Amino acid sequence: MLTILNRPSLEAPAHDSSMPAWTLADASAPQLSALDLAATRGDGVFETISVGNGYPQAFTHHLERFERSARALDLPAPDLELWRAAILATVAELDPVAEAWVKTVLTRGVEGDGRPTGWLYAAPTADFTADRTTGIRVVLLDRGYRHDIAQTSPWLLGGAKTLSYAINRAALREAARRDADDVIFVSSDGLILEGPTSTVLYRRGNTVFSPGPDLGILDGTTQVNLFRCAESLGYATEYERAIPETLRAADGVWLVSSVRLAAPVREIDGRPIAVDSTLSARFTEFLHSVRD
Amino acid sequence: MLTILNRPSLEAPAHDSSMPAWTLADASAPQLSALDLAATRGDGVFETISVGNGYPQAFTHHLERFERSARALDLPAPDLELWRAAILATVAELDPVAEAWVKTVLTRGVEGDGRPTGWLYAAPTADFTADRTTGIRVVLLDRGYRHDIAQTSPWLLGGAKTLSYAINRAALREAARRDADDVIFVSSDGLILEGPTSTVLYRRGNTVFSPGPDLGILDGTTQVNLFRCAESLGYATEYERAIPETLRAADGVWLVSSVRLAAPVREIDGRPIAVDSTLSARFTEFLHSVRD
Repeated sequence: MLTILNRPSLEAPAHDSSMPAWTLADASAPQLSALDLAATRGDGVFETISVGNGYPQAFTHHLERFERSARALDLPAPDLELWRAAILATVAELDPVAEAWVKTVLTRGVEGDGRPTGWLYAAPTADFTADRTTGIRVVLLDRGYRHDIAQTSPWLLGGAKTLSYAINRAALREAARRDADDVIFVSSDGLILEGPTSTVLYRRGNTVFSPGPDLGILDGTTQVNLFRCAESLGYATEYERAIPETLRAADGVWLVSSVRLAAPVREIDGRPIAVDSTLSARFTEFLHSVRD
Repeated sequence: MLTILNRPSLEAPAHDSSMPAWTLADASAPQLSALDLAATRGDGVFETISVGNGYPQAFTHHLERFERSARALDLPAPDLELWRAAILATVAELDPVAEAWVKTVLTRGVEGDGRPTGWLYAAPTADFTADRTTGIRVVLLDRGYRHDIAQTSPWLLGGAKTLSYAINRAALREAARRDADDVIFVSSDGLILEGPTSTVLYRRGNTVFSPGPDLGILDGTTQVNLFRCAESLGYATEYERAIPETLRAADGVWLVSSVRLAAPVREIDGRPIAVDSTLSARFTEFLHSVRD
């Protein structure tokens, strides 16, 4: 289900002022200019929001992150209330399913045109039961960046969710070549960062940890929810800087994200690690029950 | 002038086997799926080729680099002879101008579809006289990567010309904020790399230098042509590793690229540097005369 926003940002003029705020569109037909900077430069931002039984989850957190990513790219600020309404209207068009997802995209538009392009796409979620129960095998890959690039070099867009994901996808192909399912990026100075499309979580004793958001990584919407879940189960939660050995010695490691939810890691670089199936099940259960 | 290729790669099936090899299309109308991985992930490669008096310049070098970029991204190999013919046919549709450019794009296509998308776009070149004569002001910006990432971490796609250019564009906005026109990226270990859309050239005495292509940077088509030009003028040419002080002490520095051609750098980080106007003029003259 594809929806095109006529005026996706607050300041920029509408593409056509006689048009409604958004239009349901045929996703199988061409809808985008070949000159849109999304397609020619990966110049835009996005969010992927999970929808549980019709409710977009971590909705406000996602929308706020969308706005922050736009700011990092000097894009016109998205009209969040309009996006919220368009997302709800689009989700309402889906056949009822337990799990779906919505991707929102805001681009710099056609070069020279001065107006951003905005669209969203909603679809039912594939079956991730095996990932969520049996778990996934990951490899550690160099991200090339020091852990402090967000502070020293903001033009590298650390922490912004941009459309320029060619490297994230190349890393996943490298994982497949190494007979693994996913990747955990490591900074050039040896700190655990994030997955190409997920946040790292791990448990050591009675505390659930995640690498902090001051590492040029995404502020994870699912991670924040799972910290709430862990706290409700009596765990402490904490951000800390981790190295590969921290994960290998943990009592459980997860890659968490909006659509696949919490996937326990069962192997790092070909070596089995501890899997906490009990907490995995609680995580999944909690994320299924989230409203907003 | 927009042209869509029906079967842009050798192995992948055509989108419609009854269609001609390429179709001239309306660039002002939507031609691309909003689900194309170009638009959602910056997952594809491109080339920008200058066209002098109707002749695509460094044509074979560009096409070979296009193929190498595709290989770096595990994309199906472009059918170079088909692309060559489509480019010539599209250029022939342009009104005759002294300078034009063609952009070729090959993407991974619509997710799950398994067929790449290919298009090319041709247009007359804007007037770059001021950049080519008065020169440009650049700032040095951290690229975040060590100089050796192409060797250690090929999934970072060093040296591939991908559609994921959000950082290149963010760097140019940072330059504008610092009252400069362009950027020279520096590796995290202090070596001069390249511009966001150009190669660095500099002269010291009787030698014209460029940072080598073993630094995770693009193999510059214009740089190779200008080495030929410099040699024809009696200069030696050499690749060498440079640091910022190398450029500040040079007898002339240029950012060279297919469309703007050779732009002399007149200021680095706000400090004037030596400008070699004579050689700049010879560079422009040579690039205007290139056939191939």
